[in-house]
Amino acid sequence: MFIYRVNLTTKKVTKEEVSGKLQALGGRALTSTVIANEVDPLCHPLGPKNKLVFAPGLLSGTSAPSSGRLSVGAKSPLTGTIKESNAGGLAAIRFAKLGIKALIVEGQSPELVLLKINKDGITIEDASEHKGKGNYELNKVLPEKYGSKVAVITIGPAGEYKMTSASIAINDGDYHPTRHAGRGGLGAVMGSKNLKAIVIDDTGASGVPIADPERFKAAAKAFSKMLIDHPVCGQGLPTYGTAVLINILNEAGGLPTKNFRVGRFDGAEKISGEFIHKIITERKGKTTHACHPGCVMRCSQVYNNANGDYLTAGFEYETIWAFGSQCSIEDIDAIAKADRFCDDLGLDTIEMGVTMSVAMEAGIIEFGDAEGMLGLFEEIKNGTPLGRVLGNGAKFLGQAYGVTRVPVVKGQSIPAYDPRAVKGVGVTYATTPMGADHTAGYSVATNILKVGGHINPLDKAGQVELSRNLQIATAAVDSTGLCLFVAFCILDNPDALPAVVEMLNAQYNLTLTLEDVTELGKYVLKTEREFNNKAGFTSKDDRLPEFFKEEFPPHGVKWDFTGEELDELFNW
Amino acid sequence: MFIYRVNLTTKKVTKEEVSGKLQALGGRALTSTVIANEVDPLCHPLGPKNKLVFAPGLLSGTSAPSSGRLSVGAKSPLTGTIKESNAGGLAAIRFAKLGIKALIVEGQSPELVLLKINKDGITIEDASEHKGKGNYELNKVLPEKYGSKVAVITIGPAGEYKMTSASIAINDGDYHPTRHAGRGGLGAVMGSKNLKAIVIDDTGASGVPIADPERFKAAAKAFSKMLIDHPVCGQGLPTYGTAVLINILNEAGGLPTKNFRVGRFDGAEKISGEFIHKIITERKGKTTHACHPGCVMRCSQVYNNANGDYLTAGFEYETIWAFGSQCSIEDIDAIAKADRFCDDLGLDTIEMGVTMSVAMEAGIIEFGDAEGMLGLFEEIKNGTPLGRVLGNGAKFLGQAYGVTRVPVVKGQSIPAYDPRAVKGVGVTYATTPMGADHTAGYSVATNILKVGGHINPLDKAGQVELSRNLQIATAAVDSTGLCLFVAFCILDNPDALPAVVEMLNAQYNLTLTLEDVTELGKYVLKTEREFNNKAGFTSKDDRLPEFFKEEFPPHGVKWDFTGEELDELFNW
Repeated sequence: MFIYRVNLTTKKVTKEEVSGKLQALGGRALTSTVIANEVDPLCHPLGPKNKLVFAPGLLSGTSAPSSGRLSVGAKSPLTGTIKESNAGGLAAIRFAKLGIKALIVEGQSPELVLLKINKDGITIEDASEHKGKGNYELNKVLPEKYGSKVAVITIGPAGEYKMTSASIAINDGDYHPTRHAGRGGLGAVMGSKNLKAIVIDDTGASGVPIADPERFKAAAKAFSKMLIDHPVCGQGLPTYGTAVLINILNEAGGLPTKNFRVGRFDGAEKISGEFIHKIITERKGKTTHACHPGCVMRCSQVYNNANGDYLTAGFEYETIWAFGSQCSIEDIDAIAKADRFCDDLGLDTIEMGVTMSVAMEAGIIEFGDAEGMLGLFEEIKNGTPLGRVLGNGAKFLGQAYGVTRVPVVKGQSIPAYDPRAVKGVGVTYATTPMGADHTAGYSVATNILKVGGHINPLDKAGQVELSRNLQIATAAVDSTGLCLFVAFCILDNPDALPAVVEMLNAQYNLTLTLEDVTELGKYVLKTEREFNNKAGFTSKDDRLPEFFKEEFPPHGVKWDFTGEELDELFNW
Repeated sequence: MFIYRVNLTTKKVTKEEVSGKLQALGGRALTSTVIANEVDPLCHPLGPKNKLVFAPGLLSGTSAPSSGRLSVGAKSPLTGTIKESNAGGLAAIRFAKLGIKALIVEGQSPELVLLKINKDGITIEDASEHKGKGNYELNKVLPEKYGSKVAVITIGPAGEYKMTSASIAINDGDYHPTRHAGRGGLGAVMGSKNLKAIVIDDTGASGVPIADPERFKAAAKAFSKMLIDHPVCGQGLPTYGTAVLINILNEAGGLPTKNFRVGRFDGAEKISGEFIHKIITERKGKTTHACHPGCVMRCSQVYNNANGDYLTAGFEYETIWAFGSQCSIEDIDAIAKADRFCDDLGLDTIEMGVTMSVAMEAGIIEFGDAEGMLGLFEEIKNGTPLGRVLGNGAKFLGQAYGVTRVPVVKGQSIPAYDPRAVKGVGVTYATTPMGADHTAGYSVATNILKVGGHINPLDKAGQVELSRNLQIATAAVDSTGLCLFVAFCILDNPDALPAVVEMLNAQYNLTLTLEDVTELGKYVLKTEREFNNKAGFTSKDDRLPEFFKEEFPPHGVKWDFTGEELDELFNW
């Protein structure tokens, strides 16, 4: 296993054998370590001193189920913090099979380039012909040129414009750009380096070495069965995808509606997972779909338009919420088109949905105006001044138009669970080193889904501890390449985490214990937080916007944590 | 003396006798104390919890020469820090003569209002008829309605749009809106409160009580003579205004040109104070002009257009630099028109000039394109999306267009002295609680003008101490209502500061010593810095952008202070 380092200023490519502590790190643990060790916390995120790191997880490329997550790390231009954003798709597996533990992209190319990676190494190629192309077109032309089975990592126009909502797209098994390292504007970092695409061809790759294949296989098989047997991982997600959460959160009064004004949406039924399932079936799409080979949860789907033609895939709860109830929009086809725009232009759907709601707040369009919303994507596509404002996210648009009701933490939009009605996830939003991010410590599981026990979502009690434990566990899971959704099973089934540890030990000939997993999670959080401190962040940044002190219907709950209570999260 | 408190949410006006420590505070010391005591450092600057405080200086309204500065304080929407921005004009004197030590504006009015202040009190009046009006029109219609001698404090469209470059305008003795609390976007705070104007009529006011009039008069007379006898205060400023600095800084290689790329401008002569003096004379303007009655330095001027009609006044060095060499523009009439736009729309000229240079960096217009620059002001005036981006300042425009060469500290544009070629003022930019601000510790005096001694501007040695001492002294001067330019005299003449102390003692029946002045300055800085710390600022924010590590022609100097060296500033 080795690390590739590509300097786009000097055009130098180096291959470094992995040694020391880095050997036992993968995914988020590796990207955050490299960023913390090598990037000046005070540098401009879009300047030449920032680095962009891609790292498959420790288990990626193996037969471990649902292990194909790719971590992408950098200093975020959206939040100014360290950032790890991870996604499924084909890339992590390809990296791993080529023996690549990480790809570190440094410097800035004066002209648009792409990286071609195969078993022989990395070449830097001119990409000027691809300037301005959307991700869908790139996913057509790049495989045509470089081989039909390549994984492609791309940025759309938003990344080229260096918009701080820009994502990095990764193709799925249908060779569509539907998986995104969405959060934190990492597409803008890639754009600032003038890197349009990374094409990965693992033909002839030696594959991932496993120290004890039999032992690994047994553990992987056992873990896979546990996932399939779990009601969320094995039934809920494969049937309805993540959109199953619309009705659940609406029922719980925690579905943020009309820019976090109320927790229930009159149009919830029309954007629900159950309703989408019906439409997909009628239009002969796919109700279940894996974002990468080897995933047993298959939470994705293929959503066709009314003519039965492919429209989008990877159409997730957060996206549906963001362009749906958050914007008071109940037109699911319009929401799917917004998702398609984001996938194509290369934009984070959560950030863009919240940005649209703030545009409604500003009076640029009205709440509920689906056509108006889709029109605004044309502005982004064309890089007009209004498009630039929109593409830089909710906080930015709020400042441009003097709007103060802007739901962000550390500049990043708060996702699809109201922090007042689901207090555990509110604690995560406030305190994670990532800026508001539900995936950093998904307390929704225990607050709402009653996975891993139950803690009353409306009450403060126990939420800091819950979020702390989940943040630690998540930082570890994000390092394995396993999809975060395996956590539902891990939280409920005491045999699941030992099976993960067993896979790691069998693959790497290690003697890890459960305690080591916790220590890894703590190490990751500590590393990230230290970076942020050096970048000037303090506990004062671990706070929600003041409007969350308003009462939130239907439960009449308020955000009532003191700063001191939140600061306890990192006191372990 | 008393404080007026106006709550625009409840429409309640209260009059509070000043007691305790507040009695001995004025100007910046008073605004910063009120903000620090009463405003949540984590509140949104444009939300209802921010407050806007107006305070004349301790000597304002008396016969002390050049004592008519008004301090305006709030949490800044541009920087996120505490902010004091001060300006000349008629308002401070009117406030003082009415016995008003401070006006604190709280809450937010749902509809556009103005405050009418006279000897009988304060009334809140509907101002909907003035919506969208520029400052020049307001300065015509408000005196027509409220009396020809009123002082008016107003915001233009930029403030109504809540742009973070918006200023608060104060009329001069010609009843033109040429004096501005420019820095930090305080106009947006006024706009967020829906407060369009404050009209102050001191008819029948009892005037400022002086405990010992004879003693005061003697000290004021002596101080006045010292100012008149000083070469900068008594000759340079009254003759050429502050624009005399263009040739001086150009000669010193410290005049930032083409967005801080080089320290000399080929077109310097055409924008110099000497050249402007010639044009003003030819066009029958005024080469010298006081921004308020009682100023002996009279650094302002009236600049007519080619037809001999009034175009603008208060046409300062920083403005001429910002729209001139910073943008590679040598058309002085275009620069004067830009100044007029800023005065009328209510915008900080420094922030806007730097923003224009960043717009040039982004390719929106070309460097040197004077007509293009004036066209962009129309965008701001009309509140177009591009206008919103421009009106939110240089950092904001940089983010919108992915430009990293953005000269700001704490989000506020660096003014007209390159920090590499005038290192003492660079230390001030980095460390003042205000964000980049030359007036917070004008080391240019000692680095370039050889006032108060001489410290080599190109060398690090002694600059931190110089900036520290000047920041302390400035915080005290900003509390007296005296124009900062009296500092030239204070630095050179050992009798000057004692005369100021004598005036204060005679007016208030105090026994202040020179040491007390230093202590006041330290108290102000400490108060401001504590607010910033509570708002989440750390020493990491006391840094210049990384591009200042580039070599700067003609002297080939770099910004070479370490963080540790800068952090010594507050170690006293």
